[in-house]
Amino acid sequence: MGIFIRLLFSTVIFFLLHSSVFCFPRIHPTFPRYQNIRVRPEITSDSIKAKAKTQLYETKFHTQILDHFTFTPQSYQTFQQRYLISYKYWGGAKQNAPIFVYTGNEGDIEWFTQNTGFMFEQAPHFKALLVFIEHRFYGKSIPFGGDKKVAYANSSTLGYLTSTQALADYATLIIDLKNNLTANDSPVVVFGGSYGGMLAAWFRLKYPHVAIGALASSAPILYFENITSQYSFYDTVAKDFRSESENCYKVIKGSWQEIEDTAKRTGGLELLSKSFRICENSMDVDSLEGWLSEAYIYTAMTDYPTPSNFLQPMPAYPVKQMCKAIDDPKAGNNTFQKLYGAANIYFNYTGNVTCFDLNDDSDPHGLAEWQWQACTEMILPMSGNSDKSIFPAYNYSYTDRAQSCKASYGVEPRPSWITTEYGGHNIHRVLKRFGSNMIFFNGLRDPWSGGGVLESISNSIIAIVAKEGAHHVDLRFSTTEDPEWLKDVRMREVKIIESWLSQYYSDLVDSSLSF
Amino acid sequence: MGIFIRLLFSTVIFFLLHSSVFCFPRIHPTFPRYQNIRVRPEITSDSIKAKAKTQLYETKFHTQILDHFTFTPQSYQTFQQRYLISYKYWGGAKQNAPIFVYTGNEGDIEWFTQNTGFMFEQAPHFKALLVFIEHRFYGKSIPFGGDKKVAYANSSTLGYLTSTQALADYATLIIDLKNNLTANDSPVVVFGGSYGGMLAAWFRLKYPHVAIGALASSAPILYFENITSQYSFYDTVAKDFRSESENCYKVIKGSWQEIEDTAKRTGGLELLSKSFRICENSMDVDSLEGWLSEAYIYTAMTDYPTPSNFLQPMPAYPVKQMCKAIDDPKAGNNTFQKLYGAANIYFNYTGNVTCFDLNDDSDPHGLAEWQWQACTEMILPMSGNSDKSIFPAYNYSYTDRAQSCKASYGVEPRPSWITTEYGGHNIHRVLKRFGSNMIFFNGLRDPWSGGGVLESISNSIIAIVAKEGAHHVDLRFSTTEDPEWLKDVRMREVKIIESWLSQYYSDLVDSSLSF
Repeated sequence: MGIFIRLLFSTVIFFLLHSSVFCFPRIHPTFPRYQNIRVRPEITSDSIKAKAKTQLYETKFHTQILDHFTFTPQSYQTFQQRYLISYKYWGGAKQNAPIFVYTGNEGDIEWFTQNTGFMFEQAPHFKALLVFIEHRFYGKSIPFGGDKKVAYANSSTLGYLTSTQALADYATLIIDLKNNLTANDSPVVVFGGSYGGMLAAWFRLKYPHVAIGALASSAPILYFENITSQYSFYDTVAKDFRSESENCYKVIKGSWQEIEDTAKRTGGLELLSKSFRICENSMDVDSLEGWLSEAYIYTAMTDYPTPSNFLQPMPAYPVKQMCKAIDDPKAGNNTFQKLYGAANIYFNYTGNVTCFDLNDDSDPHGLAEWQWQACTEMILPMSGNSDKSIFPAYNYSYTDRAQSCKASYGVEPRPSWITTEYGGHNIHRVLKRFGSNMIFFNGLRDPWSGGGVLESISNSIIAIVAKEGAHHVDLRFSTTEDPEWLKDVRMREVKIIESWLSQYYSDLVDSSLSF
Repeated sequence: MGIFIRLLFSTVIFFLLHSSVFCFPRIHPTFPRYQNIRVRPEITSDSIKAKAKTQLYETKFHTQILDHFTFTPQSYQTFQQRYLISYKYWGGAKQNAPIFVYTGNEGDIEWFTQNTGFMFEQAPHFKALLVFIEHRFYGKSIPFGGDKKVAYANSSTLGYLTSTQALADYATLIIDLKNNLTANDSPVVVFGGSYGGMLAAWFRLKYPHVAIGALASSAPILYFENITSQYSFYDTVAKDFRSESENCYKVIKGSWQEIEDTAKRTGGLELLSKSFRICENSMDVDSLEGWLSEAYIYTAMTDYPTPSNFLQPMPAYPVKQMCKAIDDPKAGNNTFQKLYGAANIYFNYTGNVTCFDLNDDSDPHGLAEWQWQACTEMILPMSGNSDKSIFPAYNYSYTDRAQSCKASYGVEPRPSWITTEYGGHNIHRVLKRFGSNMIFFNGLRDPWSGGGVLESISNSIIAIVAKEGAHHVDLRFSTTEDPEWLKDVRMREVKIIESWLSQYYSDLVDSSLSF
């Protein structure tokens, strides 16, 4: 009956919250639990529904090698990697028509595919073959015989879940596919959003012989080590709310103390439980704070200008809607009633929820293994600023992170590995003289945007920044209600990709480049 | 007593010879044996000796991780990686003086260092720190506790000997070293010859944030799959000899049949043994053919214009010297006497050898593990052309290679991996639009040159080709007898590296690039 059961936060909620959240999952050393995100088609707009139905793809599997970078007996094990493919608009190998590849994120590829309408909508114009590749260890692309119990058991199997292996998977799959289609001269453009956007950008950097260009949307490739301010993520969440109303921001900022004070009073937990309509036996003050934080954070990330259904069914401009609920005079001085109204925008926009279960750890999009990545290479330092954040102050500690990862998996993170392998420091200086054909899109309402590339680096490494934009909004299906700025962003992206292709085709017939 | 004991070739000599030779080692599925290459200082010129003595370096070790690309418990094992460092000419961190790094090859780093005088000679001009990093699994950089018996035991340990791991070793070592020296803004230029040159080129492509440029000398990065003609290597050997004298070429080309016919006759082996002064009990016709082939091939590779001592002590222009011996009227029609004279140029220039032992499998420079690399990723297809080659015709067969590798190590090669990971196909089309700051030097007398980049790709990816040059001759110590073309090559390289550095320093103070 549509009960949204929520992630339980432990007493170290802000460690969790700040330590390893990427898109959605978060780490907890002892209780890894994830929010239940359900795609609820009933609220998607008609135009989206209509498109989703006509955008069919086939599901295929590619036999993939376990370890590209060693030659141990174990490395030769294979697994079935899923990819979705649509030939519908492809101009074919003879025409050297392009291939658009989505470099899959940390979850079920079908879900990301359904939220990447941009590729479907542009395919007819470009006569593009569409391929969406699932990331190893997610969805149906599970090594070790497809058995998640084995694959997720411990670091001896999970150890093969890394970004470098994923990129090599994509390279081998694309090359094999092109060989099979005799489409060796078809140019490949890679697309990705969020972690998938990081992978798209890194793929172009590491495999320029496989992809002629990359559209990396909302890819916080600079959120490592000390490149970006640790405060940037939470500062942006606060800025989003504050931009709607100063009161809204202040109410949220002040609420944590009130919640904690209430919890300490006799009958306080019951009051909180009732105020937020928490299901019986699931009340816990840290969990409640986590639940609320999640609502604010993910609403900020998905603060789209049209109704959407990515993480949750949501109205257009959901931060504005949340602040409306908080500023509603009807709630008077009742903070909990205000917050409850706001939380309902994110957790219960359909109005079907009868109570919220804070203990739920279901994971419908299969995002859970991100916590492994967040304990090994994806070490994004995040702190909460005491002045600006709407959350209590929190100082990131690598030592704490390392300890909890060690406790969970027995492994030590490698916090410098991502910048060692992919760079990031002085990116303008490095990439001004190296590389080409990349678009970095960022929407400044997206808390991740602070870790993105926000200024163009060269004539062909271009930053597109939309101050009104949220998390990879450009990659979503268009709607009739899309604002002009969003149409402009997509038009710019299309023009740039056109220019890559036109240069490629011109190079293809240039005999001086034919060897 | 200076006995040069030679590699035993089996009956499948031409399979061996054509299948996996890189610089020196060659594969044999059951009898991996390597030529004895001794550095014999007594014949180096005084100028070289003097320089070698003054170019001192310190030996250091870096704690390196076993596997950069997985997070299994095994991956966290560490080993001590050797590097040689010279601060003598360094301008220091405060001046952001450059760091020149040699990306070590398949052998003892001291040996390569001693044969890379160019870096020592240019260091004062550039005020450069010099670092020579040893490749994992070679020299003293042995994983698994430094125990070669364990490290080389089988594929479960040797499996970590790969080019991608080596490049990641170099990246982590360089970054750590710069951090330790507080020299984060010191630009790094990488240098390498032969396989080390391939690594230098790939390092610039994969780690542009670590190295601002690469000088890749005699790096046959295109000798994979079908990019380069399989015949190119042996055709060049033939061309070298033919360029000295048509008779020389014909005598060698015709000799194989004569050797085999002789071997079949009663007393034939004794005659051959005596003719070539083979040590007692080491005569075998295949070994003899291998021994002669080796002389021709390595003499062609090291056909330097001055006396040298890289693989063997050698006179200037040794191919010319060999042909002189073959064309010597004193030998009349005695083919074996002619070949013996030629072989002596390579194997016995010092004149100290009393007999040649074809059974020797010593490996003074620690090159043996190349055969592992040649059975996994380094699949360079080489065939002998029946018309042109001075060797009997031979057709490369991947199936044969795979079978013998399987028999030796139990592993299947991955023949497409190198081009998947590093590219190579259509390199002009790809790198015209991506990448910068690379020099590809090739000497056309070098049999490897056919697999090199022989035409400039862009304004900053530059091919320098010397028709008179041999294998990475540019990286050797200069001598007073160096010909003008060689001086010019080095001068061009210096000018180009100067331009990279000057652009880098100008970018460094450009505030628009400071983020």
